[in-house]
Amino acid sequence: MPIIPARLLDLLSDEKKAFASLALTLADGLPQVTPIWFSWDGTHVILNTARGRVKDRVMKRGGKVALLIVDPADPYRYLQLRGRVIEESEDGAYDTICDLQLKYRGNRDYPRRPGEVRVTYKILPETIFPRQ
Amino acid sequence: MPIIPARLLDLLSDEKKAFASLALTLADGLPQVTPIWFSWDGTHVILNTARGRVKDRVMKRGGKVALLIVDPADPYRYLQLRGRVIEESEDGAYDTICDLQLKYRGNRDYPRRPGEVRVTYKILPETIFPRQ
Repeated sequence: MPIIPARLLDLLSDEKKAFASLALTLADGLPQVTPIWFSWDGTHVILNTARGRVKDRVMKRGGKVALLIVDPADPYRYLQLRGRVIEESEDGAYDTICDLQLKYRGNRDYPRRPGEVRVTYKILPETIFPRQ
Repeated sequence: MPIIPARLLDLLSDEKKAFASLALTLADGLPQVTPIWFSWDGTHVILNTARGRVKDRVMKRGGKVALLIVDPADPYRYLQLRGRVIEESEDGAYDTICDLQLKYRGNRDYPRRPGEVRVTYKILPETIFPRQ
């Protein structure tokens, strides 16, 4: 399994609060890129969205994603990850978005919206740039 | 043609120095996302790369790109553009990368590398988010 270069590991930390740019290939082959909150469990990138959104539909369909994570303090420090969805789950997914709200907003009060079902995706990086 | 919301036009300005996240679909259908310098001529996003790089090969092949441009001062202010390559040219392309070097680095001294041929791409946005 590829390794995240030690000098860039801080980009994945909760303290850094970096956003990810998530790139997907839509059903018609067109690229899409959206900003997204993420967390890192030491092996996987954890994403969370709501059922039915474009991100949810595409990640289920293909499972291949690319992520760009840039240091908010220095645009020349970044990680590019390519990988695949190895797990998707609704179990505990509202808790996961609250964890992300804590990372990025400093509180766990993520709004509950009527009818919204959260889903968590676990991404396994398969290609990492830079390599060291 | 879609319009850039006036309240977000500053993200495209030279003064803002925002980077773009450029998403492409590779030949095998996989998504890729890379950081890139850009400029805005009022209608098109201008990109510049070197012949033979992945970006160059893919932009020639398909011509469809997605861009995410985030305010370096506020990650919740961003533009998502999807569009297509309407022009690619080697004419003046070294001058264009020097213009970009001026925008981002404050000088025009972009290094000339032996054998490197620069190419400029003009992207016409076809879908813009947010809409207003």
